[in-house]
Amino acid sequence: MAGSIFGSAFRISTFGESHGKAIGVIIDGCPAGLDIDEVFIQAELDRRKPGQSAIVTQRKESDTVQILSGVFEGKSTGTPIGMLIPNGDQRSHDYGHIADKYRPSHADFTYQEKYGVRDYRGGGRSSARETAARVAAGAIAKLFLAQHGVNIQAYVSQVGPLILHKTAAELDLSLTESNDVRCPDPEMATQMIDLIKAVRKDGDTIGGVVSAVITGCPVGLGEPAFDKLHADLGKAMLSINACKGFEYGSGFAGVSMRGSEHNDAFYQEDGTIKTRTNHSGGIQGGISNGMDITFRVAFKPVATIIPAQESVNVQGESVEVTGRGRHDPCVLPRAVPIVESMAALVLADHLLRQRMTKNEK
Amino acid sequence: MAGSIFGSAFRISTFGESHGKAIGVIIDGCPAGLDIDEVFIQAELDRRKPGQSAIVTQRKESDTVQILSGVFEGKSTGTPIGMLIPNGDQRSHDYGHIADKYRPSHADFTYQEKYGVRDYRGGGRSSARETAARVAAGAIAKLFLAQHGVNIQAYVSQVGPLILHKTAAELDLSLTESNDVRCPDPEMATQMIDLIKAVRKDGDTIGGVVSAVITGCPVGLGEPAFDKLHADLGKAMLSINACKGFEYGSGFAGVSMRGSEHNDAFYQEDGTIKTRTNHSGGIQGGISNGMDITFRVAFKPVATIIPAQESVNVQGESVEVTGRGRHDPCVLPRAVPIVESMAALVLADHLLRQRMTKNEK
Amino acid sequence: MAGSIFGSAFRISTFGESHGKAIGVIIDGCPAGLDIDEVFIQAELDRRKPGQSAIVTQRKESDTVQILSGVFEGKSTGTPIGMLIPNGDQRSHDYGHIADKYRPSHADFTYQEKYGVRDYRGGGRSSARETAARVAAGAIAKLFLAQHGVNIQAYVSQVGPLILHKTAAELDLSLTESNDVRCPDPEMATQMIDLIKAVRKDGDTIGGVVSAVITGCPVGLGEPAFDKLHADLGKAMLSINACKGFEYGSGFAGVSMRGSEHNDAFYQEDGTIKTRTNHSGGIQGGISNGMDITFRVAFKPVATIIPAQESVNVQGESVEVTGRGRHDPCVLPRAVPIVESMAALVLADHLLRQRMTKNEK
Amino acid sequence: MAGSIFGSAFRISTFGESHGKAIGVIIDGCPAGLDIDEVFIQAELDRRKPGQSAIVTQRKESDTVQILSGVFEGKSTGTPIGMLIPNGDQRSHDYGHIADKYRPSHADFTYQEKYGVRDYRGGGRSSARETAARVAAGAIAKLFLAQHGVNIQAYVSQVGPLILHKTAAELDLSLTESNDVRCPDPEMATQMIDLIKAVRKDGDTIGGVVSAVITGCPVGLGEPAFDKLHADLGKAMLSINACKGFEYGSGFAGVSMRGSEHNDAFYQEDGTIKTRTNHSGGIQGGISNGMDITFRVAFKPVATIIPAQESVNVQGESVEVTGRGRHDPCVLPRAVPIVESMAALVLADHLLRQRMTKNEK
Repeated sequence: MAGSIFGSAFRISTFGESHGKAIGVIIDGCPAGLDIDEVFIQAELDRRKPGQSAIVTQRKESDTVQILSGVFEGKSTGTPIGMLIPNGDQRSHDYGHIADKYRPSHADFTYQEKYGVRDYRGGGRSSARETAARVAAGAIAKLFLAQHGVNIQAYVSQVGPLILHKTAAELDLSLTESNDVRCPDPEMATQMIDLIKAVRKDGDTIGGVVSAVITGCPVGLGEPAFDKLHADLGKAMLSINACKGFEYGSGFAGVSMRGSEHNDAFYQEDGTIKTRTNHSGGIQGGISNGMDITFRVAFKPVATIIPAQESVNVQGESVEVTGRGRHDPCVLPRAVPIVESMAALVLADHLLRQRMTKNEK
Repeated sequence: MAGSIFGSAFRISTFGESHGKAIGVIIDGCPAGLDIDEVFIQAELDRRKPGQSAIVTQRKESDTVQILSGVFEGKSTGTPIGMLIPNGDQRSHDYGHIADKYRPSHADFTYQEKYGVRDYRGGGRSSARETAARVAAGAIAKLFLAQHGVNIQAYVSQVGPLILHKTAAELDLSLTESNDVRCPDPEMATQMIDLIKAVRKDGDTIGGVVSAVITGCPVGLGEPAFDKLHADLGKAMLSINACKGFEYGSGFAGVSMRGSEHNDAFYQEDGTIKTRTNHSGGIQGGISNGMDITFRVAFKPVATIIPAQESVNVQGESVEVTGRGRHDPCVLPRAVPIVESMAALVLADHLLRQRMTKNEK
Repeated sequence: MAGSIFGSAFRISTFGESHGKAIGVIIDGCPAGLDIDEVFIQAELDRRKPGQSAIVTQRKESDTVQILSGVFEGKSTGTPIGMLIPNGDQRSHDYGHIADKYRPSHADFTYQEKYGVRDYRGGGRSSARETAARVAAGAIAKLFLAQHGVNIQAYVSQVGPLILHKTAAELDLSLTESNDVRCPDPEMATQMIDLIKAVRKDGDTIGGVVSAVITGCPVGLGEPAFDKLHADLGKAMLSINACKGFEYGSGFAGVSMRGSEHNDAFYQEDGTIKTRTNHSGGIQGGISNGMDITFRVAFKPVATIIPAQESVNVQGESVEVTGRGRHDPCVLPRAVPIVESMAALVLADHLLRQRMTKNEK
Repeated sequence: MAGSIFGSAFRISTFGESHGKAIGVIIDGCPAGLDIDEVFIQAELDRRKPGQSAIVTQRKESDTVQILSGVFEGKSTGTPIGMLIPNGDQRSHDYGHIADKYRPSHADFTYQEKYGVRDYRGGGRSSARETAARVAAGAIAKLFLAQHGVNIQAYVSQVGPLILHKTAAELDLSLTESNDVRCPDPEMATQMIDLIKAVRKDGDTIGGVVSAVITGCPVGLGEPAFDKLHADLGKAMLSINACKGFEYGSGFAGVSMRGSEHNDAFYQEDGTIKTRTNHSGGIQGGISNGMDITFRVAFKPVATIIPAQESVNVQGESVEVTGRGRHDPCVLPRAVPIVESMAALVLADHLLRQRMTKNEK
């Protein structure tokens, strides 16, 4: 009800603020007997952590995860997995200057109005720091999915006006991690990095798009009516800070097609039913059809900028807000592991839910 | 878990297939003492029902709703409101020809694989007929919201390549219901209707976009982390049949803006804090900020078409599928009340949830 | 949140008041491919229905169930099963005399205070008539459980001061349905029936206890911490009208035992691990251990009595309340199928949940 | 779904095993603006902690709680409150002798069968150590309830055959904390303590009953049908380790009464509607009526005993199990704060839920 619990069967509960003592997550529903590879979990967190490259925020956080429960002799026990990520960098003195000001396009105003109180240090609970907990949990979901042959890969396909027009099939996704912006096209990556550096020089920020492809998903995941697989993926993505839109398969572009063009013809090959095209994005009637699942996620430019902006304070008086300190000029590179993690949580959840749909399991 | 329950506080549970005896819905959590205007509920259903105009399916369904419980002497009692919509038109003989064929881009294949059995008549549970139950429940949510000053208006802003470039502010939304396609711009409406008729003549279908604007929403609706207001709106929209994408505020277009352009400056007017621009789409940090909430929903072309299509049957053999009977050439006009209903369900839910966020209510 | 949804995986949503048009239930989560035996479902409802014998209320209700969805060609499809039970006997004129009076130990006062409005006809939503929906859903849960070898049998073990001191093992439970009070001991049954008739003659009512035994339950059902199997069974039973207490295994009597007496020694027989005694009632650490699950449910005397009682009206003024019309002198005989149904719903739910607990299913 | 999440509006999620690194809890849904008294929270934990007196286990745990989030400048912020209790005493070498044995009436066997793996150290997740997390969360629920005038008091009313026959009204509950056994009758307390010491000398254990009374509860808490207030209280209590039964108001004893005796006559006093008797235990139709809420909870004797017991090992072979080390001879004294905490969580949850039941809040 209060927003910090996600999933039905593979369910996570998170806590923590940007400048509190720690953030953390409990997974309730991770199946027993799964090998828990702590090195992998930490590596996933490292993909998200600040300070990892020249084009992300230089805030200092090691984001070291501790597993506190639910794992015994290297395997999940089926009971809740508690994970803790202590906050290292709690320079709260940085935030005195915004304690009573509403930063434009941040959550300062809405939190203050909603709750009547607000932890103003670094955005408190509204900070994207909260997503570290998602990545820790998502890493375990990935370990579970990997055992069932499901693989999730996300990459940056747009930064500002720079659009990568190739499809996933035309790209070598193994190159995604080879550059700081996480774009699998090296040439485009260079342009994107240059753009982000230029934007940063202006004290400004820029948005972009993350694309994702899920391979190896079995047929049958997703539920009728409200919990369609793409609806749960969409909610998962839209819950990530700065996300402004979600589309899957043909997406918004598909609306101008005719049915005769858009429909994906079925055929059979080696006993497997496939579709000639994949405008459906791997999901039909809300349920995975065995083809690659593809979706795109829009992220707005980060709200924290250096130049002075018009605003008001808690008293409703006109004030000027200026940025200070460390922030991301572009959220996209760090969004990639978050998108993957949220997708993993949704898929793990539906993989478990699917086990209950037949009389005989 | 099984997908047919939606919402947390204002929670609905739906049932029913296209060609079963009836469809229906239970609302558990409608507050007591609300005037239940049955004429309004039926009028909302009439906006969605088949056969309402020349550009929608001519299937015959009166979609007459019966309220079975939860209302006493015209007022909600706080206990579950059960509503029933009997299916009038159950011509199941129409469907013998597709009983063992998988219609392209329908849910036939995925349901068969998921469950091992399938009600093939008219798509069974995967039919958009299920959305009538949503509209009945959404109408009651609208009645509740209206008492709190919240108003939801959706309209068709794109059909195929025909794009309405005006913003909601530039339109007279009272004209939405004045034409069959539900586009508030009369000139564009005429073009859209002509296009839909031409598409129908070809036995084909076409997609489009529904735009929506919510006015009067109080500040503070939406929850941190996962249940952000736009995340719940997104899931709600993506759960509607044929939906392929969702964006709010600046959406996908906003990604190419810089933060300095995109940020919405705060100012105060007559004691109310507002923003100069509204790229945030009325939602900041996942919580409503009192400005208009705006979003757009993409719908693909309907999968049922007349021309022959390549496919396979349940045995995996190659077959040809041809359309027959009555279907929508374009889902957009009938999607408008569904979009509004789903938005109303989300808003009603969050309006109730918001009551629990402070120590003193 | 509003109380009319039960279960997690095998989830039901109910609606309906005593004197509304109908009551009903939706099951969301019934696995696909289950043979739905409508004759059995109706037979279960007949065990609960009024007028079935001389010792229950003579209210006239046929309690005829209609299945509206989720079943195709005799099998469940995995989609929601909607069931409707129209109310036949809506003599609301009977209730004018209590429209503004609070009947002692009924829910009139609490509903009025909670909601500000109240359907006073026959208790509205608070009427035990609501349990017919549970029995319809429970019948389907029983069909599912039967396929997995799980069998649930309840019987009356106490009426007022008449206590059946035999254990389930000492009784022939096939005799339960052979008499009107549903006590498997014929001699005790006769005494109980005589007592209930005497109580009725006084216009009074009497309480009692239902005992239940579940055989064939696989090891492993139930979840750690909060959703222990007996905790969910307890909630299920306590949610039945007039229930005042629940105990399982050794129950309240077990508290005066020492650990050395109470502990159930393990031994192995033919490859199956069993316990010498069963003070645990088939549940250890909240999880079924394969032994018979045993529990007892206390029901208070029905609140509706004929003699005049002191009370107040909606205005808080002193009034006298006298009973009229048709009511149960003792709820026990009709409680038996309700207890079984609620147990079946809990077991079906946990049987499905158990499928998700291991990495490899 | 997996059992470690409790509550709807005031929702907690717990993790941790007996001998893991830490146990903890997240509260999602604590209203904002509540004064968080850390001293009180620690004091509640101290009432539950081991080693507090001569009649409880001498295991060494300081049970020091750390609040990691959700509190800013001493007040709750409305966002998740994360709390951590590090495990100090992790003497896992103690448990080698039972690593492959099933201790009688423990959860060793059922966990092993359910999950296929098991953290055998001190019972792992099935250990009552898990209840420390409940007490930490319950303390915050108590702080919230106190501001609304609700007070919860539990006490030991039976140990083995020693039964306190006085009602709460006949006792001075302020004496509960004045003795080690938490029985408010000093004379009875002395007898109970002597009995527990004698039982311990035998290496044995003994059960008992905790009684509870809730005063100041407003009218209207609890939901119709399944989430009746006493059903949720019952589930809460039954979820506590070693609990075997729950009854409220007249309970099991009430079943032998007639309706004319059992019904609670209404009268009005100073504008408040009350009942002459309180067999209803403060709850009618599942909803609080403003009278004291009373209930009783049965606890079996602790399963860990010193004498040799017959059992089997993981391979199903006959083995002998002997107790070692530190355990509670009687769980009752430490159960008192746990019962209060679980009651507080249920009441806080329903207090919030009640805010949503009317059209105008």
